[in-house]
Amino acid sequence: MSSSDIFFGEILGTAVLILMGAGVVAGVVLRKSKSYGAGWIVIAFGWGLAVMTAVFIAGPLSGAHINPAVTVGIALDSGEWGDVPAYLAGQMLGAMLGATLAWLAYYGHFQAHLHDAEIIAVPEKPAHPGPVETHRPGPVLGVFSTAPEIRRPVQNLTTEIIATAVLVLAVLRIGVNEQLQVTALGGLIVALVVVGLGMSLGGPTGYAINPARDLGPRIVHALLPLPNKGSSDWSYAWIPVAGPLAGAALAAGLHRLLF
Amino acid sequence: MSSSDIFFGEILGTAVLILMGAGVVAGVVLRKSKSYGAGWIVIAFGWGLAVMTAVFIAGPLSGAHINPAVTVGIALDSGEWGDVPAYLAGQMLGAMLGATLAWLAYYGHFQAHLHDAEIIAVPEKPAHPGPVETHRPGPVLGVFSTAPEIRRPVQNLTTEIIATAVLVLAVLRIGVNEQLQVTALGGLIVALVVVGLGMSLGGPTGYAINPARDLGPRIVHALLPLPNKGSSDWSYAWIPVAGPLAGAALAAGLHRLLF
Amino acid sequence: MSSSDIFFGEILGTAVLILMGAGVVAGVVLRKSKSYGAGWIVIAFGWGLAVMTAVFIAGPLSGAHINPAVTVGIALDSGEWGDVPAYLAGQMLGAMLGATLAWLAYYGHFQAHLHDAEIIAVPEKPAHPGPVETHRPGPVLGVFSTAPEIRRPVQNLTTEIIATAVLVLAVLRIGVNEQLQVTALGGLIVALVVVGLGMSLGGPTGYAINPARDLGPRIVHALLPLPNKGSSDWSYAWIPVAGPLAGAALAAGLHRLLF
Amino acid sequence: MSSSDIFFGEILGTAVLILMGAGVVAGVVLRKSKSYGAGWIVIAFGWGLAVMTAVFIAGPLSGAHINPAVTVGIALDSGEWGDVPAYLAGQMLGAMLGATLAWLAYYGHFQAHLHDAEIIAVPEKPAHPGPVETHRPGPVLGVFSTAPEIRRPVQNLTTEIIATAVLVLAVLRIGVNEQLQVTALGGLIVALVVVGLGMSLGGPTGYAINPARDLGPRIVHALLPLPNKGSSDWSYAWIPVAGPLAGAALAAGLHRLLF
Repeated sequence: MSSSDIFFGEILGTAVLILMGAGVVAGVVLRKSKSYGAGWIVIAFGWGLAVMTAVFIAGPLSGAHINPAVTVGIALDSGEWGDVPAYLAGQMLGAMLGATLAWLAYYGHFQAHLHDAEIIAVPEKPAHPGPVETHRPGPVLGVFSTAPEIRRPVQNLTTEIIATAVLVLAVLRIGVNEQLQVTALGGLIVALVVVGLGMSLGGPTGYAINPARDLGPRIVHALLPLPNKGSSDWSYAWIPVAGPLAGAALAAGLHRLLF
Repeated sequence: MSSSDIFFGEILGTAVLILMGAGVVAGVVLRKSKSYGAGWIVIAFGWGLAVMTAVFIAGPLSGAHINPAVTVGIALDSGEWGDVPAYLAGQMLGAMLGATLAWLAYYGHFQAHLHDAEIIAVPEKPAHPGPVETHRPGPVLGVFSTAPEIRRPVQNLTTEIIATAVLVLAVLRIGVNEQLQVTALGGLIVALVVVGLGMSLGGPTGYAINPARDLGPRIVHALLPLPNKGSSDWSYAWIPVAGPLAGAALAAGLHRLLF
Repeated sequence: MSSSDIFFGEILGTAVLILMGAGVVAGVVLRKSKSYGAGWIVIAFGWGLAVMTAVFIAGPLSGAHINPAVTVGIALDSGEWGDVPAYLAGQMLGAMLGATLAWLAYYGHFQAHLHDAEIIAVPEKPAHPGPVETHRPGPVLGVFSTAPEIRRPVQNLTTEIIATAVLVLAVLRIGVNEQLQVTALGGLIVALVVVGLGMSLGGPTGYAINPARDLGPRIVHALLPLPNKGSSDWSYAWIPVAGPLAGAALAAGLHRLLF
Repeated sequence: MSSSDIFFGEILGTAVLILMGAGVVAGVVLRKSKSYGAGWIVIAFGWGLAVMTAVFIAGPLSGAHINPAVTVGIALDSGEWGDVPAYLAGQMLGAMLGATLAWLAYYGHFQAHLHDAEIIAVPEKPAHPGPVETHRPGPVLGVFSTAPEIRRPVQNLTTEIIATAVLVLAVLRIGVNEQLQVTALGGLIVALVVVGLGMSLGGPTGYAINPARDLGPRIVHALLPLPNKGSSDWSYAWIPVAGPLAGAALAAGLHRLLF
């Protein structure tokens, strides 16, 4: 694969991933959407099928890593780092493009939602005050980036490391599976792994498991002229970058050890 | 493929698509149905599995485009337009046949629903009046055709263009994937792309992403003797035709540029 | 395939189908079950995955028709009727065995449910009395057999004919698809067709689409010593037998005409 | 496969299974999780996709039995018992490792949940007192191990035997299916069988269908310093061990008889 195929393939694939992934969250959390309130089952399948669609569209160009953790995990496993810059650049640009497209697709709903939010944004008094601090960004940032339900850096980092290690280990095994290459169905299996991870390990932090998936849309959130959009929550932004990269390193190490 | 195979294949395939797709909406929105209120997860899987069933039934006859946006996207990509009239004619007839079959399958429920609707059709006072206009056709038209949650032509067109571009790009890539042809599983992957698009980008307009899927059943809605059926909402009808065709053109252009 | 393989294969496959299919309904409708109230999405996937499991277990013995409508559809299409009696006998016995196993698996829940039912079995006053008659058997019969939400024989028959015609047409096409035979994935595709049909056309009658699936468990319901089990609703029993067989004939005719 | 590959493969695979399986339950039942209250559909798909992920990761090392009932069923069917100790030891260690990882991933949520639980742990007065005894461990043990909704040993054992017999019969047939080996998709089919079994037969006991899945996490529950964790419910612990092993024996016998 040429560097240019990799770069444009990753832009295309990551844009599809984030368009559909941010889209499913927008549909579920923004008022006046037909899928409003459709629940975690739709979030988890929506993100997984976003991965699948991106892989089948961009796979022939770049292999469709669409995730810096996957790119770094493969580089650590294989020792080949030459294409990594093209992958990462394409992934970040693609993620920002995808978030912008999701905003365009749901433009009217962001406007309608923000109007309503102004009215309902009375701080809730917690029912059972306790020792656990909870900061939860409102739904507008939630369409773009992840946020933990319980904000504790070490805990949140741990969750992202564990979830990404499973993802990267699965990608490394599926990538070398010759039968799956013959049938072209590796992309379906990876997608279903992502559905499963969202169901299983998405509860605490919203499963970034992909630095570009979180950072690219967060930048777009900061830049877009959304009224009442609230903070872009930059103090949390390092965790969905560092956690997935550490998880990828853990998976690559485990992979070299065992296989 | 002969023109006759294409024509009858598209009638058959599109009829199955609309029978099952209109059927899932009827089941979820019409009172006294066992799947009443089953939610967006059932809508999204129901439409996707309708695509899958149609592809496996009609694929050997016509390739099962079952969507003018797919036919036009393939024609723009390949430059071959000879069979396009047979495809489009079959798709429109099939969509009208499918909508009629869905009406027959849910005949009693349309009657029961309409009776109840008479009683509950008191206009709701909006809780938070705001600058956004909302016109929402009642469930009876919703079984047949799409309608936006927020009625703004440019916005609605944009959403349909973006969603259809992803669909047609995926179909163009899956169609040339030789391994998927060997395993006959391209139809499953396209179906899952449609499930994903419904979850991700269906929120604003109900994802027509197929001119025949919207226009055919709308004509049937206009013709059928449904009591209290309300308007066929013809002022919106051009958007789910023009949007998907523009999205197909965008996808074909992008495909020729990148691949 | 020998007659004995067919007979025992159909007993095994249909028993697995009905054990899992009646099981998913029991789990969703009987109180004190962990899946109580899990909704139509679980019913539709549960029945579809019951088909898939039965096909992968019994396929090598009998081809896993597990449905008289499929057996009759194939016989009408191929003109070969020699094995039909062995298929039908195995299917009916298997359906009765499966219903009995589902009763054993949920034995305590039938008891607990019936106890509660005694208390809550006050007839509800309909909110909006109307011209449509509704007779709905309680959940205990619903675990075993289907019942329409709106009881009108011609309407109910029509729904079963349409839904079964789609199923049998799909089975006939998938059965001759050589690539699916190579990958052994025809069973997965048929299962997903059944998931889709449940979502799309299950609303009015509960989609028997299989005479053995309805009649076998109804006989078991009549025979089992369930306290307060209510009527076995024999006046409806002919519809889920006649409808699917007529649908199979329609599909076989259409198949010979088009392919 | 060497004994060491089997041992480490089963540790890895079973750890992934329990990390994701216990994780999905934690997400659904622990307060302040994003997937809190997501329902049985997420539980059933979450456990099934946990099986799939484990099989694709650990399959090349050990064949990914990840379940003593599968190991014993295959040994009874084939008559080869030499590797059984390595399988069982790996499975138990992996299950304990996985439960510990799930605890780490949801650490903050266990703390937050327990704090709330202290407040809400007022015993509910049953609405309809009846002859059926119900003991339901609180959600904390439920993340780790199964518990019946209605506690009757013979009934609970019967449910586990029936469900595991279907699983092991399916695994034995899928394992010898040469086409599925060619496409590497046996792991997907087994995963979907597990999704189906959870939907169909999970209602009464929570479908252990795997002795290591229940016993390993129960030991971890007993050892972990969870405040207010409640009893580890050892009086029930033998049923999800004995039931699945008896089900495996039944399946192996049936398999030798029929195939």
